[in-house]
Amino acid sequence: MQKKVKRYASITGIKKEKIAYYKELHAATWPGVLDRIQKSNIHNYSIYLKEINGNYFLFSYFEYVGDDYDADMKKIADDAETQSWWKETDPTQIPLPDAAAKGEIWSTMEEVFHTD
Amino acid sequence: MQKKVKRYASITGIKKEKIAYYKELHAATWPGVLDRIQKSNIHNYSIYLKEINGNYFLFSYFEYVGDDYDADMKKIADDAETQSWWKETDPTQIPLPDAAAKGEIWSTMEEVFHTD
Repeated sequence: MQKKVKRYASITGIKKEKIAYYKELHAATWPGVLDRIQKSNIHNYSIYLKEINGNYFLFSYFEYVGDDYDADMKKIADDAETQSWWKETDPTQIPLPDAAAKGEIWSTMEEVFHTD
Repeated sequence: MQKKVKRYASITGIKKEKIAYYKELHAATWPGVLDRIQKSNIHNYSIYLKEINGNYFLFSYFEYVGDDYDADMKKIADDAETQSWWKETDPTQIPLPDAAAKGEIWSTMEEVFHTD
């Protein structure tokens, strides 16, 4: 039986002068961070970079295959190594206003089309 | 044996006043368009919408599982029903400068992270 998949796509800004460091970090993502992602039922996770009118943005896409998204995300947020990782990545990013208003980094995007 | 998957992520602008029509089209995408996408080995195709600083953008993500991407894309471009579909969708969109310079709608984004 195939697991139920829920897709999540998000966006955040990135500081131009931090792009090289962000790429360096993600070319060798810490194993504990990847392990926690997988244990929290996140799969097929990609992040993309694009310049738009002189500003830079990151776009993330992943698939969630668990049964309790909030609980699985809390396990990521409570993970000590992930917290250390975010101390490296957070300062590279410029949250959009809707994320910033909630003290978050990534803004959710609205799905307008999907075909399997 | 699992097929080799190549991921493609792209972005384009959308006119604010055309968002409702774009959503309406994609809530009932023409069967011939979907059929041609599938026959061209594109799977798990999603499009997302996001407002950034007063402008609106579309983000697409899909997976290609064929052996000849250019040939498969040409079959889509040559398909009469897809051409009619693009006559509806193209006028809703505002290509970014790098796509516009090539006479295209969508700009490719750079992958900076992936984990299965």
